Amino acid sequence: MKKILLYCFLSAPVLVNAQQSLVKYVKPIIGTQKMGHTYPGATVPFGSVQLSPDTDTLSYELNGKYNGDVYKYCAGYKYEDKTIVGFSHTHFSGTGHSDLGDFLIMPTQGKLQLNPGTADDPKSGFRSAFSHDNEVAEAGYYKVKLDDDNILAELTATNRVGMHQYTFPKSDQSHIILDLMSGIYNYDDKTVWTFVRVVNDTLITGYRQTNGWARTRTVYFAMSFSKPFVSYGQKNFDKPQVYKGFWRKFDQTKNFPDIAGRRIRMYFDFKTEEQEKIKVKFALSPVSQANALENMQAETQGWDFDKVKQQAQAEWNKELNKIKIDASEDDKINFYTAMYHAFINPTNYSDVNGEYKGLDQNVHKADGFNNYTTFSLWDTYRALHPFLNIMQPARNNDIVKSMMAHYDQSALKMLPIWSHYANDNWCMSGYHSVSVLTDAIIKGVYNGDANKALDACITTANHRDYEGIGDYIDLGYIPAERSGTSVSNTLEYAYDDWCIAKLAKKLNRTDVYDEFTKRSGNWKNVFDKSIGFMRPKMADGSFKKEFDALSTHGQGFIEGNTWNYSFFVPQDPKALIEQMGGNKKVGLRLDSLFSMHLPDEFFAETEDITREGIIGGYVHGNEPAHHVAYLYNWIGQPWKTQEKIRMILKMQYKPTPDGLGGNDDCGQMSAWYMFSSLGFYPVSPGSEDYSLGSPAVKNAVLALENGKTFTVEALNQSDKNVYVQRVLLNGKQLAGTTIKHSDITGGGKLTFYMTSKPVKK
Amino acid sequence: MKKILLYCFLSAPVLVNAQQSLVKYVKPIIGTQKMGHTYPGATVPFGSVQLSPDTDTLSYELNGKYNGDVYKYCAGYKYEDKTIVGFSHTHFSGTGHSDLGDFLIMPTQGKLQLNPGTADDPKSGFRSAFSHDNEVAEAGYYKVKLDDDNILAELTATNRVGMHQYTFPKSDQSHIILDLMSGIYNYDDKTVWTFVRVVNDTLITGYRQTNGWARTRTVYFAMSFSKPFVSYGQKNFDKPQVYKGFWRKFDQTKNFPDIAGRRIRMYFDFKTEEQEKIKVKFALSPVSQANALENMQAETQGWDFDKVKQQAQAEWNKELNKIKIDASEDDKINFYTAMYHAFINPTNYSDVNGEYKGLDQNVHKADGFNNYTTFSLWDTYRALHPFLNIMQPARNNDIVKSMMAHYDQSALKMLPIWSHYANDNWCMSGYHSVSVLTDAIIKGVYNGDANKALDACITTANHRDYEGIGDYIDLGYIPAERSGTSVSNTLEYAYDDWCIAKLAKKLNRTDVYDEFTKRSGNWKNVFDKSIGFMRPKMADGSFKKEFDALSTHGQGFIEGNTWNYSFFVPQDPKALIEQMGGNKKVGLRLDSLFSMHLPDEFFAETEDITREGIIGGYVHGNEPAHHVAYLYNWIGQPWKTQEKIRMILKMQYKPTPDGLGGNDDCGQMSAWYMFSSLGFYPVSPGSEDYSLGSPAVKNAVLALENGKTFTVEALNQSDKNVYVQRVLLNGKQLAGTTIKHSDITGGGKLTFYMTSKPVKK
Repeated sequence: MKKILLYCFLSAPVLVNAQQSLVKYVKPIIGTQKMGHTYPGATVPFGSVQLSPDTDTLSYELNGKYNGDVYKYCAGYKYEDKTIVGFSHTHFSGTGHSDLGDFLIMPTQGKLQLNPGTADDPKSGFRSAFSHDNEVAEAGYYKVKLDDDNILAELTATNRVGMHQYTFPKSDQSHIILDLMSGIYNYDDKTVWTFVRVVNDTLITGYRQTNGWARTRTVYFAMSFSKPFVSYGQKNFDKPQVYKGFWRKFDQTKNFPDIAGRRIRMYFDFKTEEQEKIKVKFALSPVSQANALENMQAETQGWDFDKVKQQAQAEWNKELNKIKIDASEDDKINFYTAMYHAFINPTNYSDVNGEYKGLDQNVHKADGFNNYTTFSLWDTYRALHPFLNIMQPARNNDIVKSMMAHYDQSALKMLPIWSHYANDNWCMSGYHSVSVLTDAIIKGVYNGDANKALDACITTANHRDYEGIGDYIDLGYIPAERSGTSVSNTLEYAYDDWCIAKLAKKLNRTDVYDEFTKRSGNWKNVFDKSIGFMRPKMADGSFKKEFDALSTHGQGFIEGNTWNYSFFVPQDPKALIEQMGGNKKVGLRLDSLFSMHLPDEFFAETEDITREGIIGGYVHGNEPAHHVAYLYNWIGQPWKTQEKIRMILKMQYKPTPDGLGGNDDCGQMSAWYMFSSLGFYPVSPGSEDYSLGSPAVKNAVLALENGKTFTVEALNQSDKNVYVQRVLLNGKQLAGTTIKHSDITGGGKLTFYMTSKPVKK
Repeated sequence: MKKILLYCFLSAPVLVNAQQSLVKYVKPIIGTQKMGHTYPGATVPFGSVQLSPDTDTLSYELNGKYNGDVYKYCAGYKYEDKTIVGFSHTHFSGTGHSDLGDFLIMPTQGKLQLNPGTADDPKSGFRSAFSHDNEVAEAGYYKVKLDDDNILAELTATNRVGMHQYTFPKSDQSHIILDLMSGIYNYDDKTVWTFVRVVNDTLITGYRQTNGWARTRTVYFAMSFSKPFVSYGQKNFDKPQVYKGFWRKFDQTKNFPDIAGRRIRMYFDFKTEEQEKIKVKFALSPVSQANALENMQAETQGWDFDKVKQQAQAEWNKELNKIKIDASEDDKINFYTAMYHAFINPTNYSDVNGEYKGLDQNVHKADGFNNYTTFSLWDTYRALHPFLNIMQPARNNDIVKSMMAHYDQSALKMLPIWSHYANDNWCMSGYHSVSVLTDAIIKGVYNGDANKALDACITTANHRDYEGIGDYIDLGYIPAERSGTSVSNTLEYAYDDWCIAKLAKKLNRTDVYDEFTKRSGNWKNVFDKSIGFMRPKMADGSFKKEFDALSTHGQGFIEGNTWNYSFFVPQDPKALIEQMGGNKKVGLRLDSLFSMHLPDEFFAETEDITREGIIGGYVHGNEPAHHVAYLYNWIGQPWKTQEKIRMILKMQYKPTPDGLGGNDDCGQMSAWYMFSSLGFYPVSPGSEDYSLGSPAVKNAVLALENGKTFTVEALNQSDKNVYVQRVLLNGKQLAGTTIKHSDITGGGKLTFYMTSKPVKK
C-alpha cells in the first residue's frame, strides 16, 4: 500500500483543466500480481496500442506440450518478477489465455546481446533487472529504471502509436533492440512471417504474422527514431535454409535494409551522451505499413514525449470525469482503476483512414463507425457492455457495429465468440454476442438495422454444428456423453435464447419470439429437482449418475461447479426459485454458498482465480456467479444482497498489486465493481432492469452522453452502514429493488438511505 | 514433326476476322522437351495467368540439399513424362531456376486420394497418366485426356483468370482437388501460409504466401464452379500442433468454410452424368481476395468456355498479325511460336482496378500505366526489350514504368535485377535494367521522366556493396580473389555503364557522361593482351595464373567461358577488335569459335543448354554470345555473319517439342530468332543501330503502333541463298551493315538481295 500511495506523489502533473484530476487515482499496477492478469504499461481509453513491459516471454510449448507456467504471463508482466525483457506494444488486460506481445523493444548499452538471457542471470542477455522502487505506472504513462545498463525507460501512447523515451548513459555502444520473434504465449513457429524495411536512418516499417490464439494475425508497423542510428543489423534465428534466392550476394546481417524471415531480431546502434534521451515512436496498423505510417503522422507530431503523455492523461481524465464519486481514498483508487481497466477493452481496430482487416482477411473501410476488436464476450456481456451502454453508448453502438461487420465477414455466418485481430478463437461457451446486441438495442444504444441484428442472432443460435447446438435444439439440452460442458452450455444458450426472444418481441417478430422463448426455458431440462441442482443429463433423459456438486471438472460445467451454475438462470430467477423449492430453500442455499467450506482439492481445480477469489463456495474470480449475490432480492431478502455485495467489494478488490482475486477478464471484474459500488447491477442484460444492491460510494455523479446527469447518493454511508433503509428515485420512494435503464438515461437522482442494521420488511 | 503438324488440323477454329489466322502456327509444345523450359498451357499475351499442366512437383530440397532433378521442372511440364499431377495457374517460360506453380487443380473420380502418388504408379494418387496423342496445345488453349479417370481436361485463360473445363464420366464420386501445397521448386516449408474461405457452394477465395526464389510472395485467388459442389473437405498435412485456438470445436476436415494453415489440400465433391462438363474459373490477384473476385467478374461473365477460348485466341491473333511473314511452313511455326514465347513475358501484375503489390509489400495503384513483373533482365535486355521497343512500344513504356516503380519501392534503392511478384531474387549479374531504360529512352519509347530514370541508373550502378561494384569503381575491375564471376561482372558493368553514359549524353549531363564513359572502358582491365582473352585479374593487378580458356567454372565467368565472353564488348566492338590484334586475328578467332571442338568435359559444366545448343564453342543456348555472330560485320566479313546467322536459325530452332537448344529465358531466345529471321539485330541495346544479318523470311510486314509499316523483303531467298548481295532501304542502297531504329519506325522497306555465294567486297 505504501508503495501505491507513493505513486500519487511521484506522478507527473496532469494537464490542468476544468475537470478534476482523477488520473491520480488510477493504479494500473493493481492486478499485476497473482491472478489479475492486468498490465502496468501505457494505453489510452480503448486504445489500439498497449505499450507495456514484459517480464518474461515463456514458450507456450514445452517439449511439444502446453507449458502451464506461461499462463502467468497472459499480460506479459508478472509483478513478482525481477527482470524486464523489453517493452511490447499489444497486450490483453485480464485474460486467462493469451496472444499478442507484438514488437518488443529493449534499450541496452555495452556489448550487443541478441538473446534475452535468463531471469536468474539477466546480464546473460538483453533483459535487465529492475526494482519496483524505481517503477511508476500511471494511466497513459509508465516509467522504470533498467538497472543492468543504467537506462531510464518511459512509455506513453496515443490510440495507435506507442512512444518510448530512453535516457541513456554516455556510451559509444548504445543499442535499441527490436525483437520480432518475441511474443506472449510464444513458441518456435508462432511467428509465421516477418518483413521489415529500413526506409532511412530514422524510419523502419514492416509487419509480422503470427499463428496463435488468433490463427492468422498480421500486425503492421512503422517505427521512427528521434535521432539517426549509426548502424543497424539483424540476426535470423531460423534454421539455415537451402539456398533459394540469391540473397547471399549481400551481407544481410549488417546495414541491409530489406529483411524478411521467420525468426528475426534487429538492433540499432547509437552513440549517446550522458543523460541523452532517445525517443521512439512505434505505430501499429491492422492493414498496411503505409497505414501505420499515416497513423503515426496523424497522431504524433514532433518529439515532445511529455506532450504526448499529457495528452494521454488528459484523455483518461476526460473519461474518468464522466463519473465523479465521493468515497474513501482507497475506494476512489479502486473505483477509478476499475474504470480504467474497464475502459481499455474492447480496443480500437482500425486506422485513421477507417481501414481495418476483417475476419475474411480482406481490408474493409469502417463506414460510419469505429471498428473495435478483442471481444471476450463470455465475460464482458455480463457487466462491461451494459456499463458501456450507460457511460459509453456511442462507443458500444460502434462495438455492436463491429460485431455485425464480423458476422458479415464470417464464412461460418456466426457472430463473434471470443474474437481478436480479425480472428475468432472460439474460446468459452455460449453465443453471448446476442446478449450484447439485444442489450444495446433494447436500451436504444444501437442505431443500426435491428432486424438484421436479430437475423444474425438467429443464424448464430441455429448453428447446429457448433458446440452441441444441434442436440440442444433437438433435445432441449446437450447430452452429457457428447460434451464436457453440457450443462453450462445448455444454461448459457437458454439465457442467450431469452435475449433473442426479447429482441424479437421488440421487433414484433412473433414466430421468432415464440421459438426462442421456448428455447429459453431449456435450463429446466438440466435441473435435477431431486437434488435441487443443475446436473448433466444423458442422451436417454436420465441424469448422470456419478456427480460431484463441488467439483468443477468433468461435471458438465466450465469455470464453475454446480453450486455456482445452478443459479444461472438470469433470464428468469423467479422460475428458478420455484424449481428450487421456493424462497426459503433458495435463501438457505444462497447462505450456504457464501459460507460453505470449499475443500482445497476443489479450489485446486478452479481456474483463473486465487484462493482469495472464493468466498465460501461463491467464486467471484470467475464470472458465472457474478449476478448471484443479487438473487436475494428475488426472495425477499434484499439486505443479504446488500451485505454480500459490500463484502465482495471489500474482499475482492484492493488497491494493491495483488488486489484482484481473479482475472480482470477484459474489464468484466472491473465493471462489476463499478456497478456494485454505484448500488445497482444488470442481472439480466437484455432487460431494462437493474437490481439494487448497496452503494459503496457516498455520492456519484454520472455525466451521460445525452447531456443529462444521473446522481447516486448514499446518505449515512459508511463501512458499517451497508444496509439500505429506503431508496428514492427523484424523491419518490421505490417500492421494489429495481430501477430501469430509462430512469438513468432520463437523468435524475437515486438516493439510498443507509443504515447499519438489516432492513427486513 | 508429324505430331506437330497434326496439331494444325486438330486446332479448333479461330475467330474469323479481317486478320489472318496465325494462331495455327503457334506450337506452345515447342521447347517443352529437354532444355527449352517452356510450358504448353494456356495464357494470353503478357497475361497474369499461365494455366498449364505440371507433370511433376519435385522438392527443391532433398535431405537438406539442392535436388538437381528439380531443374527439369522449371516450367512444371516435362514432355518426356507420362503423368500429369494437375493444372496450376502460374508458370515462368524458359527460365533456368524457378518458383510459382500456384494453386494446382486436378479433377478425379472414384475413391478420393489426397496425395499425388508417384509417376511410376499414378493410380496411387490423384495424378493421372496421359498420352501426347490425346494432347492439344495451342495459343490460349490446352486439352488433354486424363487416362486414369477418363476425364477430359481443357484449359483457357483471360489476363487474370484461368478457366478449366473438365468432362467427367458418370460418377457419384467426382472430385476437384485444390492443392494449396503444390508448387514448382517446392519444399516442405515453402508455403508460409494459406488462407481459404468457402463463401458458398460455388465460390472459394483465399491466398497463399510462399518463401522461395521470391522471398515473400503472396498470391490471392477467387475460384468459382459452374455447378454447386455436394460437399467439400480439407486435409492439413502440417505437423500436429499443440492446441492453441479453440478450433477443435469444429470438425475442420469436412464442410468447414474457414481454413488456414501451412500445408493444405482441399477437395470438392460432385455427382456427374456421363460427359458432364464442370467448369472452373480461377482468378488471381497480387493484392486481395476481393480484387481477385473483381478480376473474375470483370474478365469472365457466364460459363461459355469456348467463348473465352476464342477471345484468348483472338487476342493472340491480333498480336501475331503485327508481323506478317512469308516463309516456309516450318519457319512460320518457328517464327510465330517465337513471337508467342516472346509475348508472354514480362507478365501483367496488377488488378483490373490498377492495384498491385509493390517491392515494399505495400499496395500501390498503377497511375497511368499497367504494371508488369517477371524481369529476367540478364537475358531479356539483349533482344526481347529491343524487340518490344519496335513491336510493343506502349507495353515496353509501361514495363520501364514498372521498373521505375520497383526502384521507388526499393529499400536498397536499386533497379530490378531478376524480379518477380513484388520481390527481387537477385539472380545473374550486371545491372541490366539500365540497358532497358536507356534503350527505351534513346528510342523514344519511354514517356516518363528521363532524368529521374538516369538518376535511378546511377544510384543502382553506384551500389558499392553489391557484387563487387565497390572494387569495380575503385580498381576498374573486380579482383578474382573476391568474386567467382569477376570477369563477366566487370564486362557486363562496363557495357551497362556505357548505356548510362549514352543516356547522360542525351540528357546533357556531362559529368555523368564523362564518369560513365570512363567506366565503360573497364573491360580493357580484364583483357589479357598476351593471350588475347578476357582473364581474371588479381587484386595486385596481375592476371590469375591458373586459367582454362575452355572451362566455364571457376574461371571468372557465369554461364560461359572466355571464348564466349571475350567478345562481350557490345558497346565498342571496334576497340575490342583493336585490342585483340585487328580484323584478321579476330576473324580467325571467330572462325575457331564456331568450328572448334569443345570436349565433353566442358559441355558437362555448361548450364541451361543441350549438347545441340552449342555450335563448335559458340554457345547459343546461353546468352552472353548472342551478338557474336554479328561481329563479322565489324571486321569486314559480313558474309560470315550471314552464314552463321542462318546456321544458328536452322540448328537452334526447330518446330518440335525439343526444338529449343537452351532455356528460352523469358523470350530472349525467341526474340533473337525473330530479329535474326528479319535480317537485323540490336548488338548494342542503348544504341539506335541494328546490325544486318541474313533474313530467313522471304517477306515480312511489321505493322507498327504508330500506324506505319516496315517491310522486309528478301529477294531470291532460299535455304541455299543465305548470302546478301546488297541491301536497299526504301530503294536506296545501304553502304554499311547497319540500319537505325528511326529507319524502322519511320516506315518503309528494307530489301535484301540474296544469293548463294558469299559476297566479299
